[in-house]
Amino acid sequence: MSQPPENLPFARYSYLGPAGTFTEAALLQMPGAHEAERVPAASVLSALTMVEDGTVDAAMVPIENSVEGGVTATLDAVSVAHQLHIVAEALVPITFVVASREPTTLSRIRSLTTHTHAWAQVRRWAEVSVPHAEFIPASSTAAGARALLQEDHAADAAICAPLVAEQLGLHVVAHGVEDVAGAVTRFVLVSKPGPVPEATGADKTTIMIPLPEDRAGALMELLEHFSTRGVNLCRIESRPTGDGLGKYFFSIDLEGHIDEARVADALAGVHRISPKIRFLGSYPRADQRPQQVTAEVSEAAFSAARTWIEALRRR
Amino acid sequence: MSQPPENLPFARYSYLGPAGTFTEAALLQMPGAHEAERVPAASVLSALTMVEDGTVDAAMVPIENSVEGGVTATLDAVSVAHQLHIVAEALVPITFVVASREPTTLSRIRSLTTHTHAWAQVRRWAEVSVPHAEFIPASSTAAGARALLQEDHAADAAICAPLVAEQLGLHVVAHGVEDVAGAVTRFVLVSKPGPVPEATGADKTTIMIPLPEDRAGALMELLEHFSTRGVNLCRIESRPTGDGLGKYFFSIDLEGHIDEARVADALAGVHRISPKIRFLGSYPRADQRPQQVTAEVSEAAFSAARTWIEALRRR
Amino acid sequence: MSQPPENLPFARYSYLGPAGTFTEAALLQMPGAHEAERVPAASVLSALTMVEDGTVDAAMVPIENSVEGGVTATLDAVSVAHQLHIVAEALVPITFVVASREPTTLSRIRSLTTHTHAWAQVRRWAEVSVPHAEFIPASSTAAGARALLQEDHAADAAICAPLVAEQLGLHVVAHGVEDVAGAVTRFVLVSKPGPVPEATGADKTTIMIPLPEDRAGALMELLEHFSTRGVNLCRIESRPTGDGLGKYFFSIDLEGHIDEARVADALAGVHRISPKIRFLGSYPRADQRPQQVTAEVSEAAFSAARTWIEALRRR
Amino acid sequence: MSQPPENLPFARYSYLGPAGTFTEAALLQMPGAHEAERVPAASVLSALTMVEDGTVDAAMVPIENSVEGGVTATLDAVSVAHQLHIVAEALVPITFVVASREPTTLSRIRSLTTHTHAWAQVRRWAEVSVPHAEFIPASSTAAGARALLQEDHAADAAICAPLVAEQLGLHVVAHGVEDVAGAVTRFVLVSKPGPVPEATGADKTTIMIPLPEDRAGALMELLEHFSTRGVNLCRIESRPTGDGLGKYFFSIDLEGHIDEARVADALAGVHRISPKIRFLGSYPRADQRPQQVTAEVSEAAFSAARTWIEALRRR
Repeated sequence: MSQPPENLPFARYSYLGPAGTFTEAALLQMPGAHEAERVPAASVLSALTMVEDGTVDAAMVPIENSVEGGVTATLDAVSVAHQLHIVAEALVPITFVVASREPTTLSRIRSLTTHTHAWAQVRRWAEVSVPHAEFIPASSTAAGARALLQEDHAADAAICAPLVAEQLGLHVVAHGVEDVAGAVTRFVLVSKPGPVPEATGADKTTIMIPLPEDRAGALMELLEHFSTRGVNLCRIESRPTGDGLGKYFFSIDLEGHIDEARVADALAGVHRISPKIRFLGSYPRADQRPQQVTAEVSEAAFSAARTWIEALRRR
Repeated sequence: MSQPPENLPFARYSYLGPAGTFTEAALLQMPGAHEAERVPAASVLSALTMVEDGTVDAAMVPIENSVEGGVTATLDAVSVAHQLHIVAEALVPITFVVASREPTTLSRIRSLTTHTHAWAQVRRWAEVSVPHAEFIPASSTAAGARALLQEDHAADAAICAPLVAEQLGLHVVAHGVEDVAGAVTRFVLVSKPGPVPEATGADKTTIMIPLPEDRAGALMELLEHFSTRGVNLCRIESRPTGDGLGKYFFSIDLEGHIDEARVADALAGVHRISPKIRFLGSYPRADQRPQQVTAEVSEAAFSAARTWIEALRRR
Repeated sequence: MSQPPENLPFARYSYLGPAGTFTEAALLQMPGAHEAERVPAASVLSALTMVEDGTVDAAMVPIENSVEGGVTATLDAVSVAHQLHIVAEALVPITFVVASREPTTLSRIRSLTTHTHAWAQVRRWAEVSVPHAEFIPASSTAAGARALLQEDHAADAAICAPLVAEQLGLHVVAHGVEDVAGAVTRFVLVSKPGPVPEATGADKTTIMIPLPEDRAGALMELLEHFSTRGVNLCRIESRPTGDGLGKYFFSIDLEGHIDEARVADALAGVHRISPKIRFLGSYPRADQRPQQVTAEVSEAAFSAARTWIEALRRR
Repeated sequence: MSQPPENLPFARYSYLGPAGTFTEAALLQMPGAHEAERVPAASVLSALTMVEDGTVDAAMVPIENSVEGGVTATLDAVSVAHQLHIVAEALVPITFVVASREPTTLSRIRSLTTHTHAWAQVRRWAEVSVPHAEFIPASSTAAGARALLQEDHAADAAICAPLVAEQLGLHVVAHGVEDVAGAVTRFVLVSKPGPVPEATGADKTTIMIPLPEDRAGALMELLEHFSTRGVNLCRIESRPTGDGLGKYFFSIDLEGHIDEARVADALAGVHRISPKIRFLGSYPRADQRPQQVTAEVSEAAFSAARTWIEALRRR
């Protein structure tokens, strides 16, 4: 049932720039994105604004912890901007290279530029491999790399994504310098509401649920609506609503698609206790891992139950 | 919303006899039953069989602990007889009189006849008030009373329902002789499936749910389907299915009517995990106590949730 | 772990009589009961009263649907009698014989005596095999059988338990005449509180829980205390408390013994929300089916959790 | 019951520096911190390392979204560093000033320096009030402010915390320039394990729970352990464990203290299903909001339940 998605119906994209970021790498995973126009944005908010005002068709932004920031900003922005939906996700391995303008060796590097978050992720490597190098903060990993091309650049080398080193023709002095290998960051592609992407059998749905009441058990009553329909959550985060102390909403990714009966039924149940629930999109999983659905929450089970009730009521 | 029911569309009734039982008293509570034909049956099963074979239109039988027996028999019979539904319930106060053929006093009574269950319920009174009276078992309280009219009757008096004493023209020597005052027995009126009685806002629904799996938590998963829809249970009993050790079904009365969204939604949810669930009827409560329904499980909440989902899916 | 129990420490028993009932058959299953004194009682209540006043050490009474009645009476009696505990259970196959004083054949039987409940259970057989026989009600199956020995007995034969036919030296005209084969009735042995029988690994615990609040979800909150400790229920019945409409208690049998951590922890949890919970005993299962306990609710898991908490608090 | 904490038993602190950050403002809320030694650290990890190696007694670090970063790093660091506990929390209002070395006006500012996260939070203000000002990234808001003091500083002004402007004697050109007023960031004080701070009646407890099984309902089974003990959660976040796809742990703040029976009982329950649960500390709430505890989860209820069980078992 799960298959590689076809080209997306978009001609112009924005993304959290500048060019060469991990976010652009995520965008380039989208079928057709290589040929599409790709507009870097200075912030997640500005990338999303370009979608809202029609400058672009869709925006790729980080949704989880990213070396270039973004989580909170993205979630808040998407929630504020009532008119945007998630239509795809991408997973990008987070790996760093040390790049320089001219060929060199680690021992000759006296200064390194990168985003502070990236620097935090290579600190142990730096203490061992370039112990005397000074750190010069940049506004993004890509901006740091790009600065090397300027005449009066301050740093000897940059810590950046492989993509930007390749795009700029920089020399890779070292690669895989991140302290923790295997990290992956998640990105989402956001567009104006249109047809929900078709169910593939390996989908996610993202929602925001204001907590109706702040008391023991309120979250559990909410989650019962998912568990009684066999809907698994892949992410849950409580976040303050911002309009007062002690008030929360839950940002949730769940396994499944709004077109599946078990998902629609669970969301309808939650809507009754938290009518301000917001649907942010159903879209194919980046990892294409097929959904496990037990018999009692299959389409057939929902359909049989509905038929039974209708027969009882018709008499 | 709740109002006295109109005449029922039935011309002939059976009931657990003989004439004068508490079951006939229950039947006489039904609007129009005084004028209808009332056929006493020797057992609950035979009363129900008369409905199935068309001899009568409906049968009144005890469903909870009754002085004249019946609980188990009734439940089992109704469940076996796949074609019968509950269409009404009745509550009858259980109070006993001491009745005799000729006027007499308690001190002159040397023997008393009644059903053993009734005898158990007046034991403490009997020890104090008629300590020397012998107990002669009868097949029902009404049969005991009726025996007094025979020429060679063995007992001086009978312990019976007020109704039968009145019907037979017996003398009431004492009344209210039950040891525990205030007991009430519940009866149900059963007929062949037809239109479900209309919702009154004070209804009950009776179902049978085979337990899908005998393990810790299985019952709770079942009950979550009721609690997440705000459906209150008024009775639950686990009972062996009879086809093997360790297998159960639940006999449940819940508050509400199949035509209410919250009830239908809960039953549909249970149907998914226990597809052999059986609907035994939605009918007005005898006590006419109106249903309390919170906002989150109101018809409006279900309707709003459905509308929201449909709008999301239509895009 | 599960093994046949040793002789019980009782010398005198009461039971729901008269001699030869299924209840006496249940009592005779108890190790040592053949040699003990066995006192028949006229009712469940009177059998229990003999325990309370010290006339006997323990009483055997039916706890589930019995051909000779008893369920409700037993449960109520045990609950009223605050000082009694269940110490053992017995399962008796319900099978009937047709017994007569002198050798005869079915075709020559014109009248049959038995308890009305027993009669209900052989009706279909009777319609086919002794269609013209008159039914004469008896106060118990054993009393009907015993009446055959009287000079002026009215009935040609009795429907009774095999035990009483054997005890009275009656002729068995037919056996296995019950309409539904395989029925089993459950009995419990009740005594004054003393040491709880030791855990065998195949135990049951009986409790009564007043429902703290009559609303949707109240039962589920109660049951969560069992499911979060992996405690399976084998029987649950809601029953009116008798002191007003809409108030219930739950009569529950659960798998496990009060000496097991998971059972004690669940009962302590229920005690917090329903402090009037009553413990009616932990005792070996009659079917000796060993308890399945998952790792997360094992004694080891409870012990490890306690150790962890204590270490945290000690710092 | 809730009262201002006394001086903490610490003489030396580290914090996410440099001096003048919101984190130092959080540290200065701790009783006695003004007089204590305060060592700025370049990263959350390095602040925590100073605690582990004994350089300082405790470290103040951001735990939720912070303008100067930190959430993920902090949580991960604390979880990796098995030997650290949270002993206090602080809430700091996030408000920014525009600061310059010499008195000036907004209209004369051509360039502004700050951390990119801070810049994102004043973007709308900047577009309106200083539309032509260039943004120069700094490694922290405090570092940007401090750079103004250097001879060759590039920026005309800095966006920074009020604290650093005051510490450095800068001129405040504008204040309250953040786009969203009222934001508050949460910080925690972390030290080596020692006695848990005493319960005040207004406490939080932080824990990490590896999800034992990734399936629908697994989270709910976990949360039942809190809801059945009336324990309210104030924060929940699912986070990948980092050792494989589809594996999660939950980072949770709950209301209450490990010394309360309801909290200890809930944690013990969770320990059974997820024995790798980690306790990160019980500590007074910064907002001193007293805990609401219902009767059924009070110390008295737990104590009564324990007493009842022990009495049953002792017999």
